[in-house]
Amino acid sequence: MNGADALMRTLVENGVTACFANPGTSEMQFVSALDGQPAMRPVLCLFEGVATGAADGYGRMAGTPACTLLHLGPGYGNGLANLHNARRAYTPIVNVVGDHATYHRQYDAPLNSDIPSIVAANSLWVKSADSPDEVAAVTAEAITASHGPPAGPVSLILPADAAWTETSTTFAPASRPGPRAPDGEAVEAAARAIKAAKAPVVLIGGGACLEAGLVQAARLQAAGVRVMADTFVARQPRGAGVFAPARMQYFGEAALEELAGTDLMVFAGTTQPVAFFAYPDRPSVLVPEGCATLSLADRATDAAAALQALADALGAPASGPVQPLKRPASPASGPLTPQACGVAVARHLPEGAILCDDAVTSGGGVAVPCMTTVPHEVLALTGGAIGIGGPMAIGAAVACPDRKVVSLNGDGSAMYTVQSLWTMAREKLDVTVVVFANHSYRILNIEMSRTGAGQAGPSARKLLDLGDPNIDWVSLARGLGVEAVRCETGEAFEAAFASAMSQRGPRFIEAAI
Amino acid sequence: MNGADALMRTLVENGVTACFANPGTSEMQFVSALDGQPAMRPVLCLFEGVATGAADGYGRMAGTPACTLLHLGPGYGNGLANLHNARRAYTPIVNVVGDHATYHRQYDAPLNSDIPSIVAANSLWVKSADSPDEVAAVTAEAITASHGPPAGPVSLILPADAAWTETSTTFAPASRPGPRAPDGEAVEAAARAIKAAKAPVVLIGGGACLEAGLVQAARLQAAGVRVMADTFVARQPRGAGVFAPARMQYFGEAALEELAGTDLMVFAGTTQPVAFFAYPDRPSVLVPEGCATLSLADRATDAAAALQALADALGAPASGPVQPLKRPASPASGPLTPQACGVAVARHLPEGAILCDDAVTSGGGVAVPCMTTVPHEVLALTGGAIGIGGPMAIGAAVACPDRKVVSLNGDGSAMYTVQSLWTMAREKLDVTVVVFANHSYRILNIEMSRTGAGQAGPSARKLLDLGDPNIDWVSLARGLGVEAVRCETGEAFEAAFASAMSQRGPRFIEAAI
Repeated sequence: MNGADALMRTLVENGVTACFANPGTSEMQFVSALDGQPAMRPVLCLFEGVATGAADGYGRMAGTPACTLLHLGPGYGNGLANLHNARRAYTPIVNVVGDHATYHRQYDAPLNSDIPSIVAANSLWVKSADSPDEVAAVTAEAITASHGPPAGPVSLILPADAAWTETSTTFAPASRPGPRAPDGEAVEAAARAIKAAKAPVVLIGGGACLEAGLVQAARLQAAGVRVMADTFVARQPRGAGVFAPARMQYFGEAALEELAGTDLMVFAGTTQPVAFFAYPDRPSVLVPEGCATLSLADRATDAAAALQALADALGAPASGPVQPLKRPASPASGPLTPQACGVAVARHLPEGAILCDDAVTSGGGVAVPCMTTVPHEVLALTGGAIGIGGPMAIGAAVACPDRKVVSLNGDGSAMYTVQSLWTMAREKLDVTVVVFANHSYRILNIEMSRTGAGQAGPSARKLLDLGDPNIDWVSLARGLGVEAVRCETGEAFEAAFASAMSQRGPRFIEAAI
Repeated sequence: MNGADALMRTLVENGVTACFANPGTSEMQFVSALDGQPAMRPVLCLFEGVATGAADGYGRMAGTPACTLLHLGPGYGNGLANLHNARRAYTPIVNVVGDHATYHRQYDAPLNSDIPSIVAANSLWVKSADSPDEVAAVTAEAITASHGPPAGPVSLILPADAAWTETSTTFAPASRPGPRAPDGEAVEAAARAIKAAKAPVVLIGGGACLEAGLVQAARLQAAGVRVMADTFVARQPRGAGVFAPARMQYFGEAALEELAGTDLMVFAGTTQPVAFFAYPDRPSVLVPEGCATLSLADRATDAAAALQALADALGAPASGPVQPLKRPASPASGPLTPQACGVAVARHLPEGAILCDDAVTSGGGVAVPCMTTVPHEVLALTGGAIGIGGPMAIGAAVACPDRKVVSLNGDGSAMYTVQSLWTMAREKLDVTVVVFANHSYRILNIEMSRTGAGQAGPSARKLLDLGDPNIDWVSLARGLGVEAVRCETGEAFEAAFASAMSQRGPRFIEAAI
């Protein structure tokens, strides 16, 4: 066995069994080692941003890391944006970054670069396994580190000579530190403060928005405490039978309007809310003036347990409100809008579906009717780097092969990682991709005035508009091997979405809104 | 005027007149400021890797920097791989990286990241213009820094509040330090060593491979000194009337075989050659054992002037050998191969064409017959990060609107930045894109055995093969607005390429090899 074999064995025997890869010459031993570990599923991605976004989707659903295989600094760079999103989602990922042989680095060959510097911003942990004998131990350390708490992406640099040299040390065990137990004093302090407050809000995010956390949050709501959730949550159940906390508004002034009068904010699985962007003369921190704040559970803490302790301390009822099942009675019809698409989605989404949302301005139209459809889960864009909708769907589908995955995308977003369609076709993943084609960076048309940048003139308009030429998404999707249809009416979208939900395998729908 | 206006004015009045952009909310003032400077050409790219690769192509041809507009850390990350290539090409580029307002950074909003750390590896110079009053000066400093010598990409971080706040300081002049004059002692030492050597080689690269350098290098060859060129050169004239130095072989053992017996290597515009990758038991440094080395001109020095001084010192003739004009007499025919494509390219390439080469294993077949076609220029992949062929062609076409641009790509390479086709259509650029579709990472099939990784089994094969499904490139190109055709024979390619050369505007040819 060589170092690459040790890496692969250590990954697989510690439960890392999916590899989203875009290999190069320096990673040939890694590729070869895959054949020795059939439990590892290799998934080829034609661009590294697909690989890293897929690893994010996988990690969110599996709760264990996938690995990626990236080709030196530039390969990592191509995957950086979706690793930024993964860092913001607290998703465990083991990035394996192939590097030149240790002795070759000094010659600064064309692909050489300062990998530790490039990966630092989005890695919980970075180490280079410079000798074959340390590969297993370093790999185990990487897996352990990726779990946190809180979890996140880590970067294991694998020089080619460490990969190709023989070693007798081929395995090391990783450990999985769980989240920290709730801090009893924090729970008591929160309970006291909530009792004393006139209008308290408990803001939940991260792990607090998973199933167990929502159950406890609903109890708080039943006890008269207003519960809200972060705007963008890595993974959250939704639909009938699930508690639906109010969501923090995206635009800060709307958020503060909804929070007006709040005199206490308690955070569970998240921190104080801040505006996504700054705007001239608008606040950055989305906490009303004079409102007190308290942390019940940080992102490293078992937020569900903390919420349970808080609910108990407040004498909350054993259960709280959940959403009813109320699917739209009438099919979508008329001109196609995000809202019409939402009707069709809510009517046909199968139970347990995983909805990957990178739809930017079109997402809200789908979210509203889905609040009362069958129970499903939503994975949101946590880091603001668009282009995760397709890749994340790949990872979710690999992690959960028995669940339907729906990927909702703006057209601007989908173009970033359009290569993801090919991997869905290659792997025959059960993913339906919807692209809302408004041929515009519509959010930027909104932001142009909000930032005080004024009216767009001819040059500025060229940068906000995706028309001229309009992208033919059906042609793109078919070119990448995915069956595709374009819908211009509610009726057409309803039929196309219903058809996609009734069959397995990748489908593409261009929603011409 | 605000900070963004100051930035734009300083760019334009210092000769930076092309902006390859993919904007976001934090860059709205920059976008708006474009309207105040109509001399700046804004080119929308649907992915940042297209923007940075285009800036590289532009800078190589214009000799002055373009600017890019990138959205915070993730936007830069998306463009990182082609900036790695640009660093290796010594191309001046001014990257403008939008950032949160200075006062907003502390709140670690979702898109916040450590931008200086992410950009460091591929930036000659990094600075954040934190106040509107310093934007003009910092911008001028960035432009100056991008010129080097040697030139390269720089990163100007522009916080949103510096962009939107008024300022009265709206311009600062940049300077353009030229290359250093040749070192007389180095010239004398090289001349002495060459006279004393039995089998000297002058290896040229970078600036030495531009027109003036080749003229002087040819004189050396005429004086009996063997001249070779780096394997991958940022920009090099080729064809009839041009000196064609022998090229260093890509694989190290082949390079060393060709260099056998060489007892002196003198470097001009480059440094000692090293293998692109390390391989077990093969050398990293491509200098024969016992061969002496000397630097005539480093990358910061005027290599053409140094070569001239050396040729003079050696009493070389006033001119040296150049390539004859000898285009293939018979059209391409039969099964399509890279060689057949090369015949058609050599027969129809117009004079002054710019050939952007990201064709990996298919590139050699085209290069050979092009050695004796009409004079043209070749831009190569300098940093090994594939996916530059389309983007670089965009930049070359914007810099040189009167010259035909031909972009040669492997299918694996072209998928990285397939979004570039849309920008070609949007800007009606005179670019013909050829994709050699072998549905394989063919280079990796070769490297698999060279690295000693053995025979690919079922898992490994999945990562080396791009089939299942085969990409329909014509469908992709048409979806992005570019007229496209698929060719399966030499005759078909000859006709398609001839047609593309006889008309203006973007064309796409899938070469099914």
